[in-house]
Amino acid sequence: MIVILKNGTPQEEITRLSQEISETWGVKVEKSVGKHKVVLAMIGDTPSINPLQIKGYSPWIEEVLRVQQPFKRVSREFRYGEASEVVVPTPNGNVYFGENHPIVVVAGPCSVENEQMIVETAKRVKAAGAKFIRGGAYKPRTSPYAFQGHGESALGLLAAAREATGLGIITEVMDTADLAAVGRVADVIQVGARNMHNFSLLKKVGAQDKPVLLKRGMSATIDEWLMAAEYILAGGNPNVILCERGIRTFDGKYARNTLDLSVLPVLRSLTHLPIMIDPSHGTGRSEYVTPMAKAAIAAGTDALMIEVHPNPAKALSDGPQSLTPDKFDILAQEMAVIGKVVGRWSERALVGSI
Amino acid sequence: MIVILKNGTPQEEITRLSQEISETWGVKVEKSVGKHKVVLAMIGDTPSINPLQIKGYSPWIEEVLRVQQPFKRVSREFRYGEASEVVVPTPNGNVYFGENHPIVVVAGPCSVENEQMIVETAKRVKAAGAKFIRGGAYKPRTSPYAFQGHGESALGLLAAAREATGLGIITEVMDTADLAAVGRVADVIQVGARNMHNFSLLKKVGAQDKPVLLKRGMSATIDEWLMAAEYILAGGNPNVILCERGIRTFDGKYARNTLDLSVLPVLRSLTHLPIMIDPSHGTGRSEYVTPMAKAAIAAGTDALMIEVHPNPAKALSDGPQSLTPDKFDILAQEMAVIGKVVGRWSERALVGSI
Amino acid sequence: MIVILKNGTPQEEITRLSQEISETWGVKVEKSVGKHKVVLAMIGDTPSINPLQIKGYSPWIEEVLRVQQPFKRVSREFRYGEASEVVVPTPNGNVYFGENHPIVVVAGPCSVENEQMIVETAKRVKAAGAKFIRGGAYKPRTSPYAFQGHGESALGLLAAAREATGLGIITEVMDTADLAAVGRVADVIQVGARNMHNFSLLKKVGAQDKPVLLKRGMSATIDEWLMAAEYILAGGNPNVILCERGIRTFDGKYARNTLDLSVLPVLRSLTHLPIMIDPSHGTGRSEYVTPMAKAAIAAGTDALMIEVHPNPAKALSDGPQSLTPDKFDILAQEMAVIGKVVGRWSERALVGSI
Amino acid sequence: MIVILKNGTPQEEITRLSQEISETWGVKVEKSVGKHKVVLAMIGDTPSINPLQIKGYSPWIEEVLRVQQPFKRVSREFRYGEASEVVVPTPNGNVYFGENHPIVVVAGPCSVENEQMIVETAKRVKAAGAKFIRGGAYKPRTSPYAFQGHGESALGLLAAAREATGLGIITEVMDTADLAAVGRVADVIQVGARNMHNFSLLKKVGAQDKPVLLKRGMSATIDEWLMAAEYILAGGNPNVILCERGIRTFDGKYARNTLDLSVLPVLRSLTHLPIMIDPSHGTGRSEYVTPMAKAAIAAGTDALMIEVHPNPAKALSDGPQSLTPDKFDILAQEMAVIGKVVGRWSERALVGSI
Repeated sequence: MIVILKNGTPQEEITRLSQEISETWGVKVEKSVGKHKVVLAMIGDTPSINPLQIKGYSPWIEEVLRVQQPFKRVSREFRYGEASEVVVPTPNGNVYFGENHPIVVVAGPCSVENEQMIVETAKRVKAAGAKFIRGGAYKPRTSPYAFQGHGESALGLLAAAREATGLGIITEVMDTADLAAVGRVADVIQVGARNMHNFSLLKKVGAQDKPVLLKRGMSATIDEWLMAAEYILAGGNPNVILCERGIRTFDGKYARNTLDLSVLPVLRSLTHLPIMIDPSHGTGRSEYVTPMAKAAIAAGTDALMIEVHPNPAKALSDGPQSLTPDKFDILAQEMAVIGKVVGRWSERALVGSI
Repeated sequence: MIVILKNGTPQEEITRLSQEISETWGVKVEKSVGKHKVVLAMIGDTPSINPLQIKGYSPWIEEVLRVQQPFKRVSREFRYGEASEVVVPTPNGNVYFGENHPIVVVAGPCSVENEQMIVETAKRVKAAGAKFIRGGAYKPRTSPYAFQGHGESALGLLAAAREATGLGIITEVMDTADLAAVGRVADVIQVGARNMHNFSLLKKVGAQDKPVLLKRGMSATIDEWLMAAEYILAGGNPNVILCERGIRTFDGKYARNTLDLSVLPVLRSLTHLPIMIDPSHGTGRSEYVTPMAKAAIAAGTDALMIEVHPNPAKALSDGPQSLTPDKFDILAQEMAVIGKVVGRWSERALVGSI
Repeated sequence: MIVILKNGTPQEEITRLSQEISETWGVKVEKSVGKHKVVLAMIGDTPSINPLQIKGYSPWIEEVLRVQQPFKRVSREFRYGEASEVVVPTPNGNVYFGENHPIVVVAGPCSVENEQMIVETAKRVKAAGAKFIRGGAYKPRTSPYAFQGHGESALGLLAAAREATGLGIITEVMDTADLAAVGRVADVIQVGARNMHNFSLLKKVGAQDKPVLLKRGMSATIDEWLMAAEYILAGGNPNVILCERGIRTFDGKYARNTLDLSVLPVLRSLTHLPIMIDPSHGTGRSEYVTPMAKAAIAAGTDALMIEVHPNPAKALSDGPQSLTPDKFDILAQEMAVIGKVVGRWSERALVGSI
Repeated sequence: MIVILKNGTPQEEITRLSQEISETWGVKVEKSVGKHKVVLAMIGDTPSINPLQIKGYSPWIEEVLRVQQPFKRVSREFRYGEASEVVVPTPNGNVYFGENHPIVVVAGPCSVENEQMIVETAKRVKAAGAKFIRGGAYKPRTSPYAFQGHGESALGLLAAAREATGLGIITEVMDTADLAAVGRVADVIQVGARNMHNFSLLKKVGAQDKPVLLKRGMSATIDEWLMAAEYILAGGNPNVILCERGIRTFDGKYARNTLDLSVLPVLRSLTHLPIMIDPSHGTGRSEYVTPMAKAAIAAGTDALMIEVHPNPAKALSDGPQSLTPDKFDILAQEMAVIGKVVGRWSERALVGSI
């Protein structure tokens, strides 16, 4: 249930009202200050609360509304239609994810293979405009006999890449037992598609502070995906970015997955959270990445994740979907063309830095 | 099997060689003149032909290659990598579909309901830049009790709309028995998603002259779709446009279908045929049409099909996915922004007209 | 809307009441005599009819109910919960399809290749207990270059097989133009999976007398399938058998399709029509046919369609999913074991014959 | 790579040979004694080993074969075609899962709600022939606001149910952090569908001793499922039972999932592991459970998992798919009818008990 306040409501009245609601009904009250409105959101056993009664608490209340969706905190209604933003501090300055900010590009290899390759790749993608380096330390692999990632030692190499470039780090956690170690290094913690329904993990990333990149499960419905995000917000962490990475359909012969770009308008209407598109996993083939990245920008994405590897033919994982740094340079130029005409491209790499 | 000729091969030699191959091997020989090369394609029992033997027929032969794909005439290889174009004469002049031409916009209502609405809609979409009016006379409907289209009388109304505007007409044929009547009016004959596997119909549209718009079946693989097109080309009609209109996946709650934009790079590499995207059926909701239309342009589509209805709330079919003419005007402006930066938008509405 | 009559309603009263309803409301009235009840079903513009008004027409009326499902005539409600049966006359006598009858087995090759093979196969499958020979004259094939069936001449060969064995014939129609020719020979006309959404064909098989076997489209929902059947009943033909033949899912590596046996209890609750299972197309591999045929019987199927070919390795189509006659003999024995314990197996091959 | 030994190979020779192979090539050698053959399976870097060289090690070697499948230890080839069995000690005696044993029935509620309900249910399902009680302590739920299971305290209630009945316990683990607690109580540890791709969890259940029930992911291919099992075997735990519980397809309106019974013949040919079918989750509706359970038996399942709740209408989770104990009694009788004719039903509840 949310309380929308009239313009000009005095700060003391907001505080008093929050307290009254909280104490009377035993719920948590969260304030969100939008461009147009201040909204108080009530969290807890709200079905038993009568909106009319709340209405009577203050003449400054404009409206009291129930959130109709089963996902509460992630729903757009919960913020009275206002988008949220996820701010990530990096050595190069704060990076903002959200529909009112320039598109954020995340790039890097599938797996962190060695220091030289990750540092080198970080430098190249930074030069092309990326704000984050991605790279897997723990890798979910179909076969137990395939390369499983270098684990904790790879986290150190990611830190070295950040040191060298000032880029933020996005890397995946696969096990609640590794969360502390990953959290010490990552600027954004990724929950992968195969773990979108790993509710234990969702609860634990919800109970820590680092922003979370939540990939869509390969056959997760939009509702299930938003419910997974709701686990994280319900745990106390409001900083979630949703990432579409292709769904499983009946045809995987050419594109390995079906990149579902319609999530952009669909999610935009349902949730206030920022949205990222991953055309590399989404198609599984590097030659399809450029058109799909451009399409994602035209359709309104807030961020992109692109796999880049210095030598895709020798990559320890996902080589066929990785671009070389040279091809990533060209992609960056092509993306900029679309990004500019939709007003979402920043010449200045960093928002918030000097 | 295709024969690539050296630059400068004399016309008489091409004729002579075609004849020799044709007479010796009992195959049909089709010549295609590309930007860089002249290619002779052999059609018939080619597996029994030895390429080396053909090679010996003329010193002007550069190479003899087998088409590896199961779809022969629609494959990109069949034209040695050159795109084809489909040229459609309309009262306003020729319209060209193909990757070397500006994007063609087709718009109009799901069903032709009456003369006034179809003529009015045609005028509005023409003003916004469309080259074709679409509208169903025969409608495939899930329920036998739903409106089935006005049938043959609606064809007359479409002709009136063409008369009034000079736009070309695209309309669907559902039954081989109606093909002659549809063919008399339509400038492009549509085979709908539900009939993509109606092989009798494919054979018959392949045996007539009007260009064919072939929609992808709702669960057709890329290979099956191209094979359906192959039926039409094998029947003798080379003028086929492929149209993606959304596939069926596990989640239809928000977007009714999943619009698979990755077909753009995939088909581009597999076939020489032009590609159209239909974001209206592809998403089923008018509010998703604009972002997906823009995405399709950014990803490289050759054409777009958009549903427009003067009063969507009262439409006899598919109202929820139809734009009003006013919203279509805005869409056209937004599409133009993307279309221009990718070099595929024509200020001049008509290519080939004065 | 249906009218349920009290037990013992005199025949004249039924006739009078039918006439009154029909004349007053301009609807068609169909009588169905079930085991327990006589039901009058009203067809036409029933939403405008007030049930209470009908109730007042006769003291013999027990109840007046609206059919809630979008599919009316095929719904179980339409017959007040009573199953229907499809009776097919064959030279060997009437064969009954329905949940109150023994399971009917249909067997034969994918395509009719020549007289000897079809007659020979018919004799073998008859000996093993089949009541119908199946065999394609017109074949839907993905590739235009694949064997397309022998067409009309194959119909004659099927007639010869019937002549030789007394078995009924089930064969597919693909084009409205061929319907008359197919109808002259077939005892049951098959509409294949690829044509389940060919509404023109559905209307035309609905307007003729031969019973229709309606296969489920490869990605048709249960509702769409029942709506396709509704087209046939709405056309005037009540004799429809529904056939599940496997749906398309994300995994076709081992079983080509996913045979959805849950349609048995689902359809049983939704419709009064008889149900057939085709484990040959449903799995695409002959080694999976036996377990799935037995499962279908255990789950309550009314009929089975099994592909049998004298020499699967040399079959012109679908060899990998065909059993040899010897293996079909063994299958028949294994099916009988399950069929007997569920009370649905007939030692006497023919119901209605001497 | 596997080494098949001739009949009558002396025990010392087997030991000597195992040692020689192991020491020469640095691989682990596992012996499996089948009904007909003794097989030595080599695990490790076998691609570099030359089979001919191994052949020369002993005249008792009949054949040396490479396992062709990507899944090695779970493949049927790995045991030279012999099925494996999983033996689970319970207070009532050993229970055997495998294709050469009677079908094992597992039953119980979705969640453990309180002591009375779980003990009562255990008594009822035992009386009807079940060998295991199932019940969730940790529940994977789509919504963070739904009942999440009573956690560790519910494990104690399961132990009480075992105490009262002698049944074995199957319960799910969702987090590596809970594995020790679950392992102390469970006789078989379940990895749920949503965690089939949780590789960290697979590795950890592979590194402990309790047998594992591995449910198929809702959109997992057969290959991915077997690879997930391979993780467990590769971790050192050979006792895995595979459980099909319905896959996600395009139609979930009536049956919530599509129960894929074709996995029975498919898995039988690919793996030696025992197979269980769960028609309760597989269809999501209690009225569909009986026909699908019977079908599973006819198709050859080794085990069944059925949800039973004393009061489904008040269940804290999955009520609609739960049978009452009374209905379970009837189901057990119907299953027995099919089970007996396929020779897989045991009057004597327990194999291995007095």
